[in-house]
Parts: sequence; structure tokens; C-alpha cells
Amino acid sequence: MPAVSLELDLNRYAPAAVRSILEARFPAALRRTLWVHPEDPETIQILDQRLLPHRLVIVEIRSAAEAAAAIREMWVRGAPLIGITAAYGVYLACLEARWSGSFPYETALRELREARPTAVNLAWALDHMAETLHGVPPEQRPERALEAAGALAEADVAICHAIGMHGLALLREAYARTGRTVQILTHCNAGRLACMEWGTATAPIYLAHQAGIPVHVWVDETRPRNQGASLTAWELGQAGIPHTVIADNAGGHLMQHGQVDLCIVGTDRTTRTGDVANKIGTYLKALAARDCGVPFYVALPSPTIDWTVRDGLAEIPIEIRSESEVLNISGFDPHAAQVREVRLTPPGTAGHNPAFDVTPARLVTGLITERGIAAASEAGLLSLFPERR
Amino acid sequence: MPAVSLELDLNRYAPAAVRSILEARFPAALRRTLWVHPEDPETIQILDQRLLPHRLVIVEIRSAAEAAAAIREMWVRGAPLIGITAAYGVYLACLEARWSGSFPYETALRELREARPTAVNLAWALDHMAETLHGVPPEQRPERALEAAGALAEADVAICHAIGMHGLALLREAYARTGRTVQILTHCNAGRLACMEWGTATAPIYLAHQAGIPVHVWVDETRPRNQGASLTAWELGQAGIPHTVIADNAGGHLMQHGQVDLCIVGTDRTTRTGDVANKIGTYLKALAARDCGVPFYVALPSPTIDWTVRDGLAEIPIEIRSESEVLNISGFDPHAAQVREVRLTPPGTAGHNPAFDVTPARLVTGLITERGIAAASEAGLLSLFPERR
Repeated sequence: MPAVSLELDLNRYAPAAVRSILEARFPAALRRTLWVHPEDPETIQILDQRLLPHRLVIVEIRSAAEAAAAIREMWVRGAPLIGITAAYGVYLACLEARWSGSFPYETALRELREARPTAVNLAWALDHMAETLHGVPPEQRPERALEAAGALAEADVAICHAIGMHGLALLREAYARTGRTVQILTHCNAGRLACMEWGTATAPIYLAHQAGIPVHVWVDETRPRNQGASLTAWELGQAGIPHTVIADNAGGHLMQHGQVDLCIVGTDRTTRTGDVANKIGTYLKALAARDCGVPFYVALPSPTIDWTVRDGLAEIPIEIRSESEVLNISGFDPHAAQVREVRLTPPGTAGHNPAFDVTPARLVTGLITERGIAAASEAGLLSLFPERR
Repeated sequence: MPAVSLELDLNRYAPAAVRSILEARFPAALRRTLWVHPEDPETIQILDQRLLPHRLVIVEIRSAAEAAAAIREMWVRGAPLIGITAAYGVYLACLEARWSGSFPYETALRELREARPTAVNLAWALDHMAETLHGVPPEQRPERALEAAGALAEADVAICHAIGMHGLALLREAYARTGRTVQILTHCNAGRLACMEWGTATAPIYLAHQAGIPVHVWVDETRPRNQGASLTAWELGQAGIPHTVIADNAGGHLMQHGQVDLCIVGTDRTTRTGDVANKIGTYLKALAARDCGVPFYVALPSPTIDWTVRDGLAEIPIEIRSESEVLNISGFDPHAAQVREVRLTPPGTAGHNPAFDVTPARLVTGLITERGIAAASEAGLLSLFPERR
């Protein structure tokens, strides 16, 4: 088990106190989800997101196997962060290979690659790392891998900021048109916790908030893992952005009644034609948005575009996760002051748990990328990424 | 607090043992959700559905105030059962008025009427009881009210059975067409626990199962109150019908991939034009069904038709329930062997909790009523209910 550097009970410490503790001991954690240990460059530190919003835990990742476990067991999640974690995993594998001539470097790569099946960033980051390291002598690999992983991380920060600037224009326009608080609905967590910084779907919201545009976010709780209720609500709360958690069932009703100005979600994989694989339930919100005339935007860093895939529904493999995520749920028990898992169903009930669904391009108003906003179509994407023609 | 007649821990007793206990002591509970105490006609016994599927509790209702509380606090729920409970509440009010000349009979009626705002059956049943009792001398009211409430209960059983027979034809047809297990998706609980017996959406399923047609039910868990995961899964399990619980987010994905042959849901109120108010999230499933070419049926006893309403979206009031239902959830903690409520969100997070949404008639394939299956339109409904022209 990876070593724990910090564990804070968020039900005991006020947000300001949490901030002070992080500022003093882990300043990187105030903005970032993953960083290199400032005093030990052979250790990566990450936020273990499984216990948010009840406990804030920082753990140390010191091997490729630990990086793979962190991805597989969703200590880290979100397509961009998964890719970056895997890249640092390759760095750690290079370190391990340096000390042990027999270390199976290829095995480590395969374990990282198989940690999650749906997000394209994972394979993309690993391919990029493998190319970078191709022909590099083993003793020079750690340094090159660390540089390459760091460059991926900084690129993600820049990409998310650019996505935020393009999306900000949409929020600014909505505010100018209505003259009141802009109502945004989001699903799952495509926030800073899914990336290095800023997030994808949340980047326009953070920038609008900084620019003084009044915003309010409807946060889908996002069963079964409740990343909205736990992660998005937590990070928006930390940033002081007004938000309200709703059941995943409620968004259609809100859109029917004019209570949503636009939807912005993230994506784990986008096809060449603009189909979007994202957290299970995204498709239902896109249908409601279309039916109610609400714009439905998807924010994505271009590495999540899989240029080899045309038909998202037929071609993107959908991860089926454990039924236990549907049958059980974790939360904070205030009487015992601890996090507990409780069972929701009768004893012996079966569950089924597809983790993603595919929203066809025809339901997507626009794709917010780091290069601008494209129509959700091959022509739209190629207009921004002509090198992919 | 109403007296408790029976409390069984369903995690300790096997279904067969539960059956034996009920057969010996509360045989009515094997089929029904509410009945008159066999040895004390001034007491109504009900299943307290709040603790299912973890505890089976039978309580005694002995006053109109207790009947109103049972409706308001959702010990009983489901449009038909709410109406019948209110009718028996009027009976209990008549008994109370008999013993106390000063008992405010009208106040009791108002308290019952205000217990839940959305279901039309409640008002319908109370109006029916008031008409029946109009001009009846106070000392004769209890007997007349008991008769009238009993007649409503028996009518509900007959209506649900007739709905089942009409819906059975759809399942029989699907089985004949595909030659394999018929896959049905349902939302919330429109089962026997929502009625006196049979249920509405479940009646065709129970009858198909009895007729030897292989069926499998995808059970939406139905956040925030999880009536699917707790009640529908429990009652289908008791009846031996194959079923699988899914997150509310998953149904669209299943329909995209041909894993649903038809949807059948219930309704709390149906307009003259075929719009359907049902549990929050129903609208999203209807959109997915339309998008994927899956038939979407709504099963309804005709008392849930509000012939005075034409525009469901504009005219049906939607109950906003406590945010705490979104922010918290109850489940069974196997370590402590008890039911606990846990918090899902960061401390201080706000939630919003609309309990129903309206599915426009254009998304509904057909309305399964006790008189047959109608198109979801005024013309369709009037063809079955010409007396409403």
C-alpha cells in the first residue's frame, strides 16, 4: 500500500483551516491533483479521491504498480489525470528498471495500459512516453521520462486554461443575454480533480467566476460512484462557486422549466465524428437538452479525441464495473463520525454497472477544445485540427 | 406514533421464513399493502414501506391523523395506495367524530388532502368519500365509510388485474416476436406496494411470469428515495421474477444497445391529453426510448386521469421535497446489522429535490388502462372513456 502523507477529516476542519494546512505543508495540493515530491524526485504525490468529500488524503506513489493501482482503483480518475498518472508511472518504471536489470519494463507498461479500458488518454500518454523513450539507454530513461511526464502535465494545464477561455465566451454571452445568474448543469466530475488544474467542463466556470460573471451550477450527483455529489460539489465549494446538488433524474425537469441555460460536460473519448463517450447518464441529459432547446457543450482536451474511431456507439468499448457500486454506497455517518458503506438493495439482488455511455454527435451543440469551439462533426473537428485530415 | 404489530429483520430471515410468519399471523400481508384488522374493525394495518427492503414492519393506523401522517411521511406511497389510505382515513375520522361530538371532521379531511400535493387519486378518493357521506347522519357514517373505502380497495384490485391482462398481451407479443426473455425497464415502484395488489406497471409482468413467459426486469434504482432498488427489487424478488438493479443513468445506454424490449412505468397523474406526471427521471427514460425506438408504455388506473388538465407541464404542480433526500441516503450497514443514514455530499452543500416530472404525451407509445390500451392523446383516452367527452 502506498504511504499516506496527509489525512484530514474534512468534517472537523473548516475550509480555511484546510487551506492553511495545505499552504504550509503541501502548497501544490491547493491547485493540483498530482505533483513530484518537492524533496524526493523519485516520489509522486497524489490526492486519493476515493475518500472525498469526507477525508482529504495525500498518498505517495513510488512504483509503476502503485501508479497502475491508483488508476485501476480510482484513487485518481478523469481522462486527463489518468493519462498523466500513467506517464509518471512510466517514469517510476524507468527508475525501477534502473536499479534492477531484470525489471520487466514492458510488463509495467502493459499493467498501466490495462488499468482502465475506456479513456483514450491513457493509451495516448503511454504511446507518447514509449516513443519518447525509444532508443534511449536505460540509465538515461528516468530523466527523460520525468521531463516528458512533466511536459504532459504542463500541457494539460495550458490546454484546460485555453478550454476555459473559449468556454468563458459562452457564459459571458449567456449573461449578457439574460442579465441574471447563468445556470449551468454538469454531470460527473470534469473538474480540476479530473485534470492537473482548472478542469475541462469547470474551466469556463472558474474563469467566469474570476471575471465576476454570476454563475450557479446544478451538480448531477452521478450515481453510481457519485463523483458529482462528492468531487464536483467539493471542488466548487472550495472555490466558492454557488452550486446545488441534484439527483441524476432531476436535470430533465429543470431543463423543461427553463432552469438551465446550458450544459457543459467532459468526455473520456471523442470520436473523429464528434460522438462523445462520457460518464453513464450523459446521453440522457443530452437528449433532454435537445428536447428543451438547451445548448449542450462538451469540453475536451484534444488528446481525448480518438481520430481512429468514427462510430462511437459501435466502436468504443464500455467498461462494465462491479455491481457492488450500484448495490452499495458510501457516505459519512455523522453519529459515528466515519465513512461507511451501506447496502441499498435486498440481500442477494443483482446489479449491472456500465460506467460510460455514448452521446451521438447529433445531440452535441459544440465541442469546446483548446483551439476553439467546433461543431460536433468530422468537418467541425478538422476545421480546428487540419493536421488530422 | 402508531403501534407496531410486527417487525422482521429481512437480513436475518430467509424469504421462505418470512412467508411462513406472515401466513401464520398476517396472511393479508402476503398479497396486500393495507387491510382492516381481522379482529378489530376500527384498526387499519399497513406495511410501513420506509424500512423495506431491510425490515418488514406492519403498523396499526387508528386515526385520521395517523393515516395522514402515513401518507405524508411515505409509510405508504404510490398514487392508488395513497387514495385508498386516505379513504380509510375518512373512515377513521368518522369513528373519531362518533365518539367526540366536537371532533373537527372537516379538519381531518383537509389534513388528509394536504398530505401529498401531486397524486390526483388522493383528492379523487377524498371527494368520492365526501360525496358518499353527504347527508348521512354522523352515527351511520362509520359503517358507510368503511363500505365505501372497502369498495375502493376492491376496485383497485380489479383495475390493476385488468391493466395486467391488457399489458400481458404486449409481453406475449414481444416474446412471440423475439423468442427469448422479454427485457422490461421500469422506473420507481409502480408495483403491488404502490397499490392494493398486482401493481400497475408490474401487473403485466406478474401475469406474464404466471403464464410462463420468460421476463427480466431492469429496475431503475430511482434516486433520491430509491424506491426501485428498495421496493421494486424486493417485491419482484418475493415473487421470484428475474430482475437487475441499475443506476438511473444506465437505462439510455441499455436501450442504445438493444437490451430493453419495452419500458413500462406508472404515473401519479395523467392529463386529458395523455401527458404523464411520474417519478422524477421518467421523462429522461421516455426520451431515450423514443431515440432508440423502444416502446414506452405507461400503466394507469383511470382514477389517475385528471380530466380537467390539458397541459401537464404547465398545470401539474410538482412537489419539491426536502433537500436532505438528495444529500443523504439510507442503507443497511452489515457490520452493525442496522439501517443507517449517511451523508453523500460535503458539509454544508445545498440540494434541490423535485419529486416528479412530466413526460409529454408525444413520447408515450400507449397508456395501459383497465379498459384497454389507448394512444396517449385526448382522442385515444376518449375512445376508451367516452363518458368523458
